Amino acid sequence: MRLGTLRLPGGTVAVRVGAEHATEVGAPDVGALLADPAWHDRAARAEGPTHALADLAPTRWAPPVVWPSKIICVGLNYAAHIREMGRELPSHPTLFAKYPDALIGPYDDLALPPEAPDAVDWEGELALVVGAVTRRASAEQARAAIAGYTVLNDVTMRDLQYRTPQWLQGKTVEATTPMGPWLETDLDLTGELRTEVDGEVVQRTRLDDLVFDPAALVAYVSALVTLRPGDVIATGTPGGVGHARKPPRYLRAGSVLTTTIDGIGTISSHVVAPAAMPAEGAAAGADA
Amino acid sequence: MRLGTLRLPGGTVAVRVGAEHATEVGAPDVGALLADPAWHDRAARAEGPTHALADLAPTRWAPPVVWPSKIICVGLNYAAHIREMGRELPSHPTLFAKYPDALIGPYDDLALPPEAPDAVDWEGELALVVGAVTRRASAEQARAAIAGYTVLNDVTMRDLQYRTPQWLQGKTVEATTPMGPWLETDLDLTGELRTEVDGEVVQRTRLDDLVFDPAALVAYVSALVTLRPGDVIATGTPGGVGHARKPPRYLRAGSVLTTTIDGIGTISSHVVAPAAMPAEGAAAGADA
Repeated sequence: MRLGTLRLPGGTVAVRVGAEHATEVGAPDVGALLADPAWHDRAARAEGPTHALADLAPTRWAPPVVWPSKIICVGLNYAAHIREMGRELPSHPTLFAKYPDALIGPYDDLALPPEAPDAVDWEGELALVVGAVTRRASAEQARAAIAGYTVLNDVTMRDLQYRTPQWLQGKTVEATTPMGPWLETDLDLTGELRTEVDGEVVQRTRLDDLVFDPAALVAYVSALVTLRPGDVIATGTPGGVGHARKPPRYLRAGSVLTTTIDGIGTISSHVVAPAAMPAEGAAAGADA
Repeated sequence: MRLGTLRLPGGTVAVRVGAEHATEVGAPDVGALLADPAWHDRAARAEGPTHALADLAPTRWAPPVVWPSKIICVGLNYAAHIREMGRELPSHPTLFAKYPDALIGPYDDLALPPEAPDAVDWEGELALVVGAVTRRASAEQARAAIAGYTVLNDVTMRDLQYRTPQWLQGKTVEATTPMGPWLETDLDLTGELRTEVDGEVVQRTRLDDLVFDPAALVAYVSALVTLRPGDVIATGTPGGVGHARKPPRYLRAGSVLTTTIDGIGTISSHVVAPAAMPAEGAAAGADA
């Protein structure tokens, strides 16, 4: 089953995505749907208003979970890439965070941030979405707690990432992380992930080469902290990022960045020039 | 003005804290209050039910913002401590994240996490709380966007922090970050911060020794990502942490950890032994 979130004039709605139509399931987004323990049956049986896929503008698609309570990202996690770098396989996953303000829809434009437009790099990733409140899960419980999988590109401002020892500031820039197009609840993890820039394949891996697989990550993270419905774990990127090339290669205005996972689909962002630096400042009305 | 959040039988409530009474202001917590642009006047004028401070059990006090949309922590940020370590003052703040699941109230017990009970360290900090939607703030806008200040101890599992290159997993362990007791909206930043363990002062600094002061941090972070009402920035800890001592010194069951900021107040946690490892697993009812 595929579950997505559409932007409609009245707000966002969660939908079950079929071959030709999307059917509303009665929740404002997939995150809100997953907060209902009966989400699977409810989504499978829903008979709400439908939308012909062919009639939907690409920007109607929102990130499936619009506002995850947490997004957890994983560092180096593909065995072939780690070995080709001459490193040992890690004993524990490297975890870092991204705030939900970073998310954009699967076909939204990716605007180069005006503060850091010059080293914007791709990191195609498989993301899992949590479907139940989960704490200290066994491997079996962890598998059951995964609602499904989606495609995410952990687009990274390398200059900001390496400005200090902690990567957060290069990872959480507003509106730079495309995610979607939907959640696939029945994914076979033996397919491929591919990232393309202007049609050229720049990253390619089998998903089953992950050192820490999705269930292992859920078990590990849930030993630290509670995972909640809609939480996202981005499982890490394979080799082929632009920063590691000689010379380095980054995204430029006019580029098209696509990320595909077999069995889920493709997300695609037009990279656009930084807007003239907006001086938004504090919102009007604040009287602090 | 002081603004706190109380745990009452029907749920949490935001209160204005006076000399002898706390007065309800009609919001479920300080975070929800701050989402109203008129929060300052509303809180100052509220005449809701009152609670005698002397009658309130310490564990009635919740973190003032129960569920911030983001908690941003700052690394090394006190000039005297950086210089005594022989380092240069940094040109940019080091930022890392903590998920809101980590927060506990200002007087709650601090249970050593059973997965990592042996290297639990203190990091007393001044935390600022954002009072307006803020993006790309000037210095002046940044100052205006700060609703107030509170006390936070960024209690850190050093073994988890240094297990991988990214600190997140040592910083966001469930229920290990005391915050409170309230937000002080009119703080003079010339006082002191002191951390004590069993009555011994282990950290002591003037607040005006911060390299990146609160307004500078709001301006810097808001150039990356939108800050929202209730968001917390923990401004960094001074020298004197246990991990840097020879031999290292960590919190043990039975310790009392207190953190005081002049003009705000004191938070105090009894450190208790890890509970027998609960096997909570995935919540019942998940049918994913």
